[in-house]
Amino acid sequence: MRSVSVIGIGETKMGKLDSGLHELILEAGNKAIEDAGIEKTAIEAGYIGNFDSAHLCNQNHIGAMVSEVLGLKNIPMIRTEAACASGGVALRQAYMAVAGGFYDIVLVGGVEKMTHQSTDIVTSALASAMDYEKEASLGLTFPGSFAMIAHRYFHEFRNVKKEMAMVAVQSHKNAMLNPDAQMPRDLDLETVLNADLVASPLSLYDCSLITDGAAFAVLATTEIAQSLNKHRTVEIIGSGHAGDTLSIFGKKQLTTLDATISASKQAYEQAGLKASDIDFAEVHDCFTITQIIISEDLGFFEKGKGADAVLEGKTARDGIIPINVSGGLKAKGHPIGATGISQLYEVVTQLRGDADKRQLPKANIGLTHNFGGTAGTCAVHILKGW
Amino acid sequence: MRSVSVIGIGETKMGKLDSGLHELILEAGNKAIEDAGIEKTAIEAGYIGNFDSAHLCNQNHIGAMVSEVLGLKNIPMIRTEAACASGGVALRQAYMAVAGGFYDIVLVGGVEKMTHQSTDIVTSALASAMDYEKEASLGLTFPGSFAMIAHRYFHEFRNVKKEMAMVAVQSHKNAMLNPDAQMPRDLDLETVLNADLVASPLSLYDCSLITDGAAFAVLATTEIAQSLNKHRTVEIIGSGHAGDTLSIFGKKQLTTLDATISASKQAYEQAGLKASDIDFAEVHDCFTITQIIISEDLGFFEKGKGADAVLEGKTARDGIIPINVSGGLKAKGHPIGATGISQLYEVVTQLRGDADKRQLPKANIGLTHNFGGTAGTCAVHILKGW
Repeated sequence: MRSVSVIGIGETKMGKLDSGLHELILEAGNKAIEDAGIEKTAIEAGYIGNFDSAHLCNQNHIGAMVSEVLGLKNIPMIRTEAACASGGVALRQAYMAVAGGFYDIVLVGGVEKMTHQSTDIVTSALASAMDYEKEASLGLTFPGSFAMIAHRYFHEFRNVKKEMAMVAVQSHKNAMLNPDAQMPRDLDLETVLNADLVASPLSLYDCSLITDGAAFAVLATTEIAQSLNKHRTVEIIGSGHAGDTLSIFGKKQLTTLDATISASKQAYEQAGLKASDIDFAEVHDCFTITQIIISEDLGFFEKGKGADAVLEGKTARDGIIPINVSGGLKAKGHPIGATGISQLYEVVTQLRGDADKRQLPKANIGLTHNFGGTAGTCAVHILKGW
Repeated sequence: MRSVSVIGIGETKMGKLDSGLHELILEAGNKAIEDAGIEKTAIEAGYIGNFDSAHLCNQNHIGAMVSEVLGLKNIPMIRTEAACASGGVALRQAYMAVAGGFYDIVLVGGVEKMTHQSTDIVTSALASAMDYEKEASLGLTFPGSFAMIAHRYFHEFRNVKKEMAMVAVQSHKNAMLNPDAQMPRDLDLETVLNADLVASPLSLYDCSLITDGAAFAVLATTEIAQSLNKHRTVEIIGSGHAGDTLSIFGKKQLTTLDATISASKQAYEQAGLKASDIDFAEVHDCFTITQIIISEDLGFFEKGKGADAVLEGKTARDGIIPINVSGGLKAKGHPIGATGISQLYEVVTQLRGDADKRQLPKANIGLTHNFGGTAGTCAVHILKGW
């Protein structure tokens, strides 16, 4: 396998935006290509994560749209869809395309346009990431699914409602340092705890956001990255991808998500690293309980101890393993198909030392964790700045 | 690159079926795995082409569904979507995953469930493969798009309405020998020519079908294929993938489809072959005019001569380059996401000599051509039986 690095990154602001799909792709795609400092003709292929523009924008075939909007005619451009992991899977495929020697320079991106639709339509679109026949058509929604997971966590360990609220407080605070974030906010714990219930035990601030946004990156062989000599070289040293059942009822357990375990094991092994070697991580906090479970499944904390770690400040900006310093899905926003690439954007920005006010003092090895649906798909990547 | 071969194939009957997505995947997936003669645990990853179950079945995240339905837990399973080329792109990615050394045995499939929806909903779903903002929302449909292409062809060359009808006659006749075909029919030219207009100059029999169906295959290194020693080894000797604009108005010409030119050039070069070396081909005849144009773009005939070739019987079962002996999209059926893999199914079946009544006497090198939308994506594969 050839060594692969990230040579360019770009993203839009996240939130309720006036831009449609074309404009989001144009802005983030051009930013990434400009950041790489390459000609468009140097790009040989592309991958684009998009979850459900079919429902939300009557638009499929987003690959060809990216080619047309960015003026990249005749190159192969592949849309990947794996629910909320659509972007992470695009990154994995783009990585493989370069590592496997098929292409030297590849564009990878993600896009989602959501806020123009009613909550009902968005909720129904999101539910298409679970099993329609056996789950969604019976009325299950994602807050409902993750509420079951939270209840099971409470049952197996203890009630961590307060710790979940603390995840929200930290993430909204982190977002105050991120100019691209959708909901920067200095919240106190009481406000979060007293917010309206969505699906018990999840209340308003336990849920991630509905967001418009796009993020793109350019990958190349590390040899090319070094020859460009424009930014600190950021190499993808570990790449993992795993699946699990589509349904929640098919899973053998709910408080350990097997796809995270398997994908992160692959990435750690490839990188020759263990969890304690990671300086910081962007993880898939679709709900606050999810961040706690993921922090355990990635090996940052023992099973059942992730909630304590939050209260002890271990996942805060100045903790031993800062998680979601971008604000995460919770506060930066969750433009579904773009989320996996926006995580990459944050990690590369930190590794380059370009994160301005939110720059972490120690940022040499970062991890992205992106999953889809009820953890039916998971992609994990580990990046190192040289 | 490692050499890659097809070790297993399976498909459902094509047509208006009672089965839903789960059942279609189960049937075709298990057939392919059984045909390969391997244990399910030997499969390391998978790719699944699906166009628009989002609209048609409220179902995204089909990758995780495939894993669950077939009992392939925790392996990465990637949905690709590129309109009608979703299956061909899945094949391309699966090929790369094995050729690049990431996995030794990979499942690849495609599925679409369409006939349970009204014509209005299916037409609107199909239109999501063109540019919604600038085309579909203004009322353009795919019969409308390809009608423009046909008119342009008539303008640049001559009126080939009769030759288009002959494509339909041949394909429906070919389908009579295919037990999986949706619309086997012995039609006479007058019936086809006198059918109701859909979008001038395209009439009823110029259009491909609305179809439920699934097709799967198992790819492996050629080394593994030979060690299994179960079927004639069928190697993928050329793989090409190219894009073009999403919109029809963005194309520089309408009677030569650049994505076909570029993808087939890649495949021919990799295989070290030229068009005249191909024994037979399954091509993307979404409309009869399209088959004529594709037969020129693939280099089987000179530009403007593809229609003559049809009348002269050159593309018939006993012609110099039999096209769509399966019946094609026109008569076997067009289960969108599955089409690219069903083409592979036919080519492998012929190369193995397993095509029963429709077996071609000369079948050593076959080609699949699958495109999406208004030719915004194209995948071409060349296979050889050893």
